[in-house]
Amino acid sequence: MSQRMHKYTFPVSKARKYLEPGPVLLLSSQFEEQSDIMTLGWHTVLEFSPSLVGCMISSMNFSHELIRNSGQCVLNLPTAELIDKVVAIGNSHGDKLDKFDAFGLTAEPAHSVGAPLIAECFASFECQLYDDSMVDNYNLFIFEIVKAHVAEQPEFPTTLHYTGEGRFTIMGDKMLDKSKDFKPEMLI
Amino acid sequence: MSQRMHKYTFPVSKARKYLEPGPVLLLSSQFEEQSDIMTLGWHTVLEFSPSLVGCMISSMNFSHELIRNSGQCVLNLPTAELIDKVVAIGNSHGDKLDKFDAFGLTAEPAHSVGAPLIAECFASFECQLYDDSMVDNYNLFIFEIVKAHVAEQPEFPTTLHYTGEGRFTIMGDKMLDKSKDFKPEMLI
Repeated sequence: MSQRMHKYTFPVSKARKYLEPGPVLLLSSQFEEQSDIMTLGWHTVLEFSPSLVGCMISSMNFSHELIRNSGQCVLNLPTAELIDKVVAIGNSHGDKLDKFDAFGLTAEPAHSVGAPLIAECFASFECQLYDDSMVDNYNLFIFEIVKAHVAEQPEFPTTLHYTGEGRFTIMGDKMLDKSKDFKPEMLI
Repeated sequence: MSQRMHKYTFPVSKARKYLEPGPVLLLSSQFEEQSDIMTLGWHTVLEFSPSLVGCMISSMNFSHELIRNSGQCVLNLPTAELIDKVVAIGNSHGDKLDKFDAFGLTAEPAHSVGAPLIAECFASFECQLYDDSMVDNYNLFIFEIVKAHVAEQPEFPTTLHYTGEGRFTIMGDKMLDKSKDFKPEMLI
């Protein structure tokens, strides 16, 4: 059984620290009595403040429907030790399956949205739908991160990055600090 | 001086292999006699075929103007050994500076677009503007990758992933093959 991560409130305007490196995410959503979890690899930060993120959520995913109905979701950041759950979730469909039960994950109440946090993930970003004008054409949802929760240690978690065909690369624990080479105004 | 990478044609529908893991990119663009290079961390794959990618390119970048005028760019994938050039490019403005000259990079003619490839990068994806309807609101350009060039070795390059505040994490060379746990139809 995976460990629940104790998370602390983190500034939403700094969510890029964990999202911009491009990890696989577990997206949780809920509408009325139905919830879902899906894997998400196609996402990008779009703005610091409001804290915006664009997510491509295929209409084949049950989550797509739940988010269209609820206007909310949570982006959860799993570390590499959760890889088997990440793969299993990506291979299942949520309309008839409670994925929290099926994959041994713990739903925690969020602060600002109805969708649950995934307790075992390193970070969770509560999202409110901000702009759905690109959903019909591209399945691209633009969310505002309204509340962020991040575990304290390690500063740079070992994340999973999907390369297709069932293969993941793993973020190393090496960090290169080039801040002294940046113009001060670029250090955001 | 960095080495020029010999690159081979790669299927555009598989560009996600190199873009989905979330690396920092060097975006090159050209309009008439002016070219630019900028660093790009905010991008996401949007579709396999056509091969679509969404890129958030701030209007403060000279590249923004060049792309609006030309409708084209190249997304180049630098490896970690290019970090000092990546940082220097991110800290400079291209309207009065030839960044190829200034940072010792080689402009190579592309196959299908007017913007140049960066010879020293591991991969280059030639892009045609596909949808500019989100540019005014979000600086979000949707491009179609029309031609891809990728070096043969290594299969998984050591890429840079930006976390903000001048600090980069580095993709490890560890790859986890979970393809046997995937449903066959998910192995794209």
